[in-house]
Amino acid sequence: MTDLPGIVITGASGRMGRMLIQTVLASGKARLAGCVERPGHAWIGRDVGEAMGGAPAGVSVTDDPLAAFARAQAVIDFTAPAATVEFAALAAQARAVHVIGTTGMEPEHLAKIKAAARHAVIVRAGNMSLGVNLLVQLTKKVAAALDADWDVEVVEAHHRMKVDAPSGTALMLGQAAAEGRGVALDAVADRGRDGITGARSRGHIGFSAIRGGDIVGEHDVIFAADGERVILRHIATDRAIFARGALRAALWGQRQKPGEYDMIDVLGL
Amino acid sequence: MTDLPGIVITGASGRMGRMLIQTVLASGKARLAGCVERPGHAWIGRDVGEAMGGAPAGVSVTDDPLAAFARAQAVIDFTAPAATVEFAALAAQARAVHVIGTTGMEPEHLAKIKAAARHAVIVRAGNMSLGVNLLVQLTKKVAAALDADWDVEVVEAHHRMKVDAPSGTALMLGQAAAEGRGVALDAVADRGRDGITGARSRGHIGFSAIRGGDIVGEHDVIFAADGERVILRHIATDRAIFARGALRAALWGQRQKPGEYDMIDVLGL
Amino acid sequence: MTDLPGIVITGASGRMGRMLIQTVLASGKARLAGCVERPGHAWIGRDVGEAMGGAPAGVSVTDDPLAAFARAQAVIDFTAPAATVEFAALAAQARAVHVIGTTGMEPEHLAKIKAAARHAVIVRAGNMSLGVNLLVQLTKKVAAALDADWDVEVVEAHHRMKVDAPSGTALMLGQAAAEGRGVALDAVADRGRDGITGARSRGHIGFSAIRGGDIVGEHDVIFAADGERVILRHIATDRAIFARGALRAALWGQRQKPGEYDMIDVLGL
Amino acid sequence: MTDLPGIVITGASGRMGRMLIQTVLASGKARLAGCVERPGHAWIGRDVGEAMGGAPAGVSVTDDPLAAFARAQAVIDFTAPAATVEFAALAAQARAVHVIGTTGMEPEHLAKIKAAARHAVIVRAGNMSLGVNLLVQLTKKVAAALDADWDVEVVEAHHRMKVDAPSGTALMLGQAAAEGRGVALDAVADRGRDGITGARSRGHIGFSAIRGGDIVGEHDVIFAADGERVILRHIATDRAIFARGALRAALWGQRQKPGEYDMIDVLGL
Repeated sequence: MTDLPGIVITGASGRMGRMLIQTVLASGKARLAGCVERPGHAWIGRDVGEAMGGAPAGVSVTDDPLAAFARAQAVIDFTAPAATVEFAALAAQARAVHVIGTTGMEPEHLAKIKAAARHAVIVRAGNMSLGVNLLVQLTKKVAAALDADWDVEVVEAHHRMKVDAPSGTALMLGQAAAEGRGVALDAVADRGRDGITGARSRGHIGFSAIRGGDIVGEHDVIFAADGERVILRHIATDRAIFARGALRAALWGQRQKPGEYDMIDVLGL
Repeated sequence: MTDLPGIVITGASGRMGRMLIQTVLASGKARLAGCVERPGHAWIGRDVGEAMGGAPAGVSVTDDPLAAFARAQAVIDFTAPAATVEFAALAAQARAVHVIGTTGMEPEHLAKIKAAARHAVIVRAGNMSLGVNLLVQLTKKVAAALDADWDVEVVEAHHRMKVDAPSGTALMLGQAAAEGRGVALDAVADRGRDGITGARSRGHIGFSAIRGGDIVGEHDVIFAADGERVILRHIATDRAIFARGALRAALWGQRQKPGEYDMIDVLGL
Repeated sequence: MTDLPGIVITGASGRMGRMLIQTVLASGKARLAGCVERPGHAWIGRDVGEAMGGAPAGVSVTDDPLAAFARAQAVIDFTAPAATVEFAALAAQARAVHVIGTTGMEPEHLAKIKAAARHAVIVRAGNMSLGVNLLVQLTKKVAAALDADWDVEVVEAHHRMKVDAPSGTALMLGQAAAEGRGVALDAVADRGRDGITGARSRGHIGFSAIRGGDIVGEHDVIFAADGERVILRHIATDRAIFARGALRAALWGQRQKPGEYDMIDVLGL
Repeated sequence: MTDLPGIVITGASGRMGRMLIQTVLASGKARLAGCVERPGHAWIGRDVGEAMGGAPAGVSVTDDPLAAFARAQAVIDFTAPAATVEFAALAAQARAVHVIGTTGMEPEHLAKIKAAARHAVIVRAGNMSLGVNLLVQLTKKVAAALDADWDVEVVEAHHRMKVDAPSGTALMLGQAAAEGRGVALDAVADRGRDGITGARSRGHIGFSAIRGGDIVGEHDVIFAADGERVILRHIATDRAIFARGALRAALWGQRQKPGEYDMIDVLGL
């Protein structure tokens, strides 16, 4: 057991943090080497299993990330851009793989991540599920194979609490379709269709966002021609797939040279 | 054969006019009694079957609607508001049932239709398919049975040439959901969701419009709660269903008293 | 808190038992009054919260159902037919509402349940979700409204561990369609279509079963005519909906006279 | 116009024959060079446009295939195996490309087609739509990328007149999935699931067949893992796509060396 790679989870008390902790504990492929929260958090010093309302896990929550990272082989981090940038520097210092699921990064954050990746393995992705990353690859390939007689529409559905539309994953799929066709997405995106729109412009890529209930995430890429349609669909029903993808990235990263990678690399797609 | 009710088709040369003519000719339940086009149209005086590129139908296209209506039991009319108002008066004069599939009516047109219906049977509907009208009924009933823990979303898909969004049928479905809940649709409609929208408001009704290929018309009414969804879906794959619905309305109208009816009445839903 | 109705959960250690316990504990509408397991089970005498690997719940697991039922207002029971029959007699004796989600009942079991319902409130259903029961009602109504030009197909998808096909819920939906049409399901069911089947028989009801992954349960009732389709769909993504439905039935049952009820009654559909 | 490649349609009076004739006439990329029916057929000697109930097409139906083929650059043939074998020899003799959409071929027919392809260009496919052939390619690729944690299910829907299940296209998709995984389809196919089936076997490929209305053809390849699904879907709504695919194959074949090709070659997928 102690020979398994040690993983530190940041943002341990958040919804994704808890999911990651449970995934590592149940995996049989890694051990939980540490849990990080911000200074002053109620969980600091407590056993993380008990803090989550369950049995003891044998790991206390700490507010000292560098000490935790130094005892681990990888850090999985779904927090916020400013914290992630700081963690990237510390993980590089500790020679631990840094898996980043944080979203909303601005160019200045990305520049610092890039700098850290000169000396460390970083895996960063907007969506860590195997299925979605496969869908991105397929979308690019199909968009390249079919001409503009095939109208492309990206439709996504998410839970009622989601605050932005379309989803980051939908935009990633639209980007893949645009790349497949050799056009810039911004020039062809039809978002928020409403009212007297006129006929659809040839070559455009449409987006629709459905919101309701607790839908984890569903994405359709529709290629619609006269008389036929090809649809590439991904349905996520359990957030655990994102945690499992992140763990897979952490294990994969153990064998890599320093650099910045994404899930396409991890999955070998 | 001559005992079958005689039907006149207005706007004979249009896409819907042709579909209606073929439907009546193939029905075995009615006979084609006349075809109307506007004065000066190239088809005037020609046999309508030949004008459509087929075998003779034994009916010449005319620009005299009253004479045509007087020899018929019903008029089926998918034209434009101004023409339809005029046809309504002539059909009442001729004591023929007037089936109206024309869309885009303004209040002043509707007032004249209402006046004509004092002396004649008029059936008017935005969508003449049996399935869509059934869906409208179901939507109202389900919206009344489920509380606002169930988020309502209306998603529609149509061909690339459609110029407005959402479709009239989608709005009709949203209206039915709003009625089922006892709210005004205008107060709760989320249309063209895009950007930082914030979390979904409880009780709102969302609309999404997909455009591509030659999709005839697809409508989903989604009721999404935590852990489960109920979806009411209609798929149209052939415009002939609208023509068959109109013919059914024309036959049903033979047995009715003067008044304005819709497809819910015709279908006995 | 002690004024809330007390609920006993049977089969406490099973997957559905745990789900029910968590649902009652989190509900705010009822209190957990007891947990029952069979004599000799490792959980007997332990606090059920700790036995599930979490915080203490203040309720010990017992192998004496009558004593537990006597201190409660309702029993929720997803176990096996023989146990359920025994629990029905004890719940009647204790004047507790008995909510039964147990499946696979044979006529002899049902006769005993019926006998117990002369003196007690029993709610029994093959599927306790609001959405599925609504779908059953809609299916019956739509089947009655549409004639046999509309072919009926029931398609269901479940997880890879499911051992029977089609699902009990699919058969319940098929039964509702058959009732709506006034025919016997056995006489018209097309199951396991494979090979040279010949053309579809008019009026038949087809069944298809998809198996894969951890799909909780999805059911489509398709009404397919020439040129259009109406589809009634239910998607379950969280087994908690069955537990919430059972709790709702337990609370509803407090206000009823003795008798056997189903979820249609509970939901007032 | 006379410089366009000349196409002969066999089985001219059949549903697919008529569709092919209309497609060639409307294409602007080819001219209708002949129409073949069996000796004694009522259409022999008549103008094919008039025989179809429309305007004259300037081409008489003949029962002499060799004479017709000799005046053409390609033959499109959706007939029956025995006729197709005969046409293959004649097309080779006439140096015309032979596009074969005939299904139900036995090994002895295929051997003769192969012999003819030594001296002539033959394109043969069970489904001539661009979308379906793309789906076959994607299915193979995805099946190779995902391991057996992803259960594969093929679901198809067709009109009520279809006499066999699953469809030939569904089997082609299942075959592609089996190839992607390096297994034999016969060893892993689950067809006609019904009754007490036991849990799903790892690595198996399931098939479901939905029948109803006038559905042209819909195919889903579902890859279902724990917590997520990838679905590849094709929807055909107009048989004209098969005719357009066949015409595309006929034009593509003009530039090829003798040999037997399929639609994957034609489409350059």
